[in-house]
Amino acid sequence: LDAGYLARATTRLETSDPPTIANILEAFPWEKRLQIWQLLTPQTKGAVLIELNEEVQDGLIAESLPENLVKTVSGLDIDDLADLYERLPEKVRAAVLQAMDERRRQRFEAVRRYPDDTAGGLMDVDAVAVRGDATLDTVLRYLRRIRRQQGELPEHMDAIIVVDRASRYIGMLSLSDLVSLEENRTVSEVMRAELSPIPALASAKRVARLFEDYDLLSAPVVDEDNKLIGRITVDDVVDVIREEADRALMSAAGLEEESDIFAPIVTSAKRRAVWLGINLINAFLAAWVIEQFEGSIERLVVLAVLMPIVASMGGIAGTQTLTLVIRGIALDQIGPGNIRRILGKELGVITINALLFAFMIATTMMIWHQDSNLALVFSSALAINLLNGAMAGAVIPFVLYKLGIDPALAGGVVLMATTDALGFFTFLGLATFFLL
Amino acid sequence: LDAGYLARATTRLETSDPPTIANILEAFPWEKRLQIWQLLTPQTKGAVLIELNEEVQDGLIAESLPENLVKTVSGLDIDDLADLYERLPEKVRAAVLQAMDERRRQRFEAVRRYPDDTAGGLMDVDAVAVRGDATLDTVLRYLRRIRRQQGELPEHMDAIIVVDRASRYIGMLSLSDLVSLEENRTVSEVMRAELSPIPALASAKRVARLFEDYDLLSAPVVDEDNKLIGRITVDDVVDVIREEADRALMSAAGLEEESDIFAPIVTSAKRRAVWLGINLINAFLAAWVIEQFEGSIERLVVLAVLMPIVASMGGIAGTQTLTLVIRGIALDQIGPGNIRRILGKELGVITINALLFAFMIATTMMIWHQDSNLALVFSSALAINLLNGAMAGAVIPFVLYKLGIDPALAGGVVLMATTDALGFFTFLGLATFFLL
Repeated sequence: LDAGYLARATTRLETSDPPTIANILEAFPWEKRLQIWQLLTPQTKGAVLIELNEEVQDGLIAESLPENLVKTVSGLDIDDLADLYERLPEKVRAAVLQAMDERRRQRFEAVRRYPDDTAGGLMDVDAVAVRGDATLDTVLRYLRRIRRQQGELPEHMDAIIVVDRASRYIGMLSLSDLVSLEENRTVSEVMRAELSPIPALASAKRVARLFEDYDLLSAPVVDEDNKLIGRITVDDVVDVIREEADRALMSAAGLEEESDIFAPIVTSAKRRAVWLGINLINAFLAAWVIEQFEGSIERLVVLAVLMPIVASMGGIAGTQTLTLVIRGIALDQIGPGNIRRILGKELGVITINALLFAFMIATTMMIWHQDSNLALVFSSALAINLLNGAMAGAVIPFVLYKLGIDPALAGGVVLMATTDALGFFTFLGLATFFLL
Repeated sequence: LDAGYLARATTRLETSDPPTIANILEAFPWEKRLQIWQLLTPQTKGAVLIELNEEVQDGLIAESLPENLVKTVSGLDIDDLADLYERLPEKVRAAVLQAMDERRRQRFEAVRRYPDDTAGGLMDVDAVAVRGDATLDTVLRYLRRIRRQQGELPEHMDAIIVVDRASRYIGMLSLSDLVSLEENRTVSEVMRAELSPIPALASAKRVARLFEDYDLLSAPVVDEDNKLIGRITVDDVVDVIREEADRALMSAAGLEEESDIFAPIVTSAKRRAVWLGINLINAFLAAWVIEQFEGSIERLVVLAVLMPIVASMGGIAGTQTLTLVIRGIALDQIGPGNIRRILGKELGVITINALLFAFMIATTMMIWHQDSNLALVFSSALAINLLNGAMAGAVIPFVLYKLGIDPALAGGVVLMATTDALGFFTFLGLATFFLL
């Protein structure tokens, strides 16, 4: 089976482009990854490297000879190189800087000045800018000249940025307007000025929201003086959106860092041990609650049978509310202004379900154990823990935000700790009070 | 507080664009939504409507008078209208069709021919196409003529599609090349032919992957005969990516359909009751397993204290593997070719952690209960259930796929059922056998 897969992969490799090769590499364990990696030319290696997830990148960087690495990364676009740069060995960094001409180095430094997760970190510095008093005809001639001199225009150029004498942003001239309007009109007559430029320190998340809401293909990035320093193109934004979504999914299982499915076993085991350890503390907390009622369980063993139902149902109800609230906060739809209404709604929803399930459960218990007191205690505890869960699910994200902890990462754990401990306590407490 | 929020919202509304207004509407409960909605002009209503989530759309459609609705949607772009169309009342649909001229109706029908979640459903039908033998100069004149006649070019046009005599796709001419190469060259000399056109029936997910991997801004869509029928632009793809990610997050909590945080309470309660009900069945299954060991618990009540720890730790370990595997399958990185290696790796990771936690737990138990037999049974059961969890997490997604069930929706539930039942069974079974 394995040999067949490798054979097929090799065939695919020969006719494949970098994103496909990157995907193939990620689907193989390390020994095969290295075999495949050796088959690639330095230029392909560079193009593949930037498509890989960070963990696989790091592995391949560690396995490459410095001189090969220099060849691999030297041809990269400046923004791609800036993303990789920090993770290259010192020696390679020096050689790469050395090999840059003055213009490339300046542009490289401009990108590196801003953190990765800001507009400045995402931007390309190769924006083409023109002045408002130029005619379209002049712009066309200017573009043809750049093309002749540099052999190419910036990638993904859908618009040209219009600046004033001091390089301050004033508008955008779309290529679509440039090619379809009369050539003797001036840029400032036909440019669009409604789009505000993006400040270099705006967060990547905010940039993604702007691109989504306004269906942008590219946007200008400016520094504190409104001076044009680069542009962001939608392809980089798509990556931000995908990574953000990926992180939300992974972090709910305590896996935020782990993106390589073939990370070394010991590395993976260490990371996951942390999460298992945190949850073990939770589980012992719940066990401690149960231990307080050992006497009750000894006298009425059916309590042990039913108590996990109360705890787990609270967890489920809580997870639903938690998920909705975390999502609402992320989308800016839930905030201090309407949290009380959200609480009110969630309370309404869970009250209906608490009554419904309490009734169902009470009926079931009457059939199963013919004990109306037990039925009453069990269904009351379940209803109360459903309420606990929903309230905890609504409140926990806000508390975690206040504490500076990402609710997507820690929300589930804190919720489970709450619903387990409260669930056991409510049920065993009520049972001790009313049944014994 | 509330009045202040509404006042601020109204101020924002007056100066806001459709995406912002949509976001404000989603953040308010229904009575306020309707107040705000009444303030908008028909044209703004249309632009806002397409930005809202489906549930809020449906609500506003239900609240609008048919004649107002016709005004609201008539001005929409064809692809936006096609998305909404099925959810409009019969009467409104007829009136909207009636109001279309022949050309618009034909294009509308072309989009509606394909399901929403395919390339055909995503495409715009307003692609500008030219023939390969035209010169760039001719193309420029052609674009200026369209612009003069129709007042505008298609939105988000970064490239022109090149077709042959029979309208079959042969390549793309980027506007960037059009504006920067010599005007006397022909289209076929300078066009790019490497990009394969997207078949109309390709899934939206596949389209999103193509756009991401190849950093596309737009791509041509063709029918079965390779004839050009439209183009997809990246802004629609961004929406697909966001919705896909959103669905994955929500469905893990059984919330896939629920995107309106202010859905009517009874509607929300009904939906969530389904999920609570499914989980209740799980919980009762686990309770049934415990009941089989009532006698053992009666004789050794500490079993009741410890058993939730075994069950929940298995669930945590399983969730980690499950999340990685579901994600790997979605990214095409896990398949029949390497599943055995994934299983092997996950088995390795969990074996290390099982040994680690078994040792820690055994030590803790010796301190807590000074009972080496109990420590041995408890830590063995915990180790075994961690293995159960990891194996279940790796296998369940494949089984669900085979059964045609979305693992993102059902994976967590099935996993929990497995790790709870097996966890209680292993621990109570071992305890009964060795300790009693």
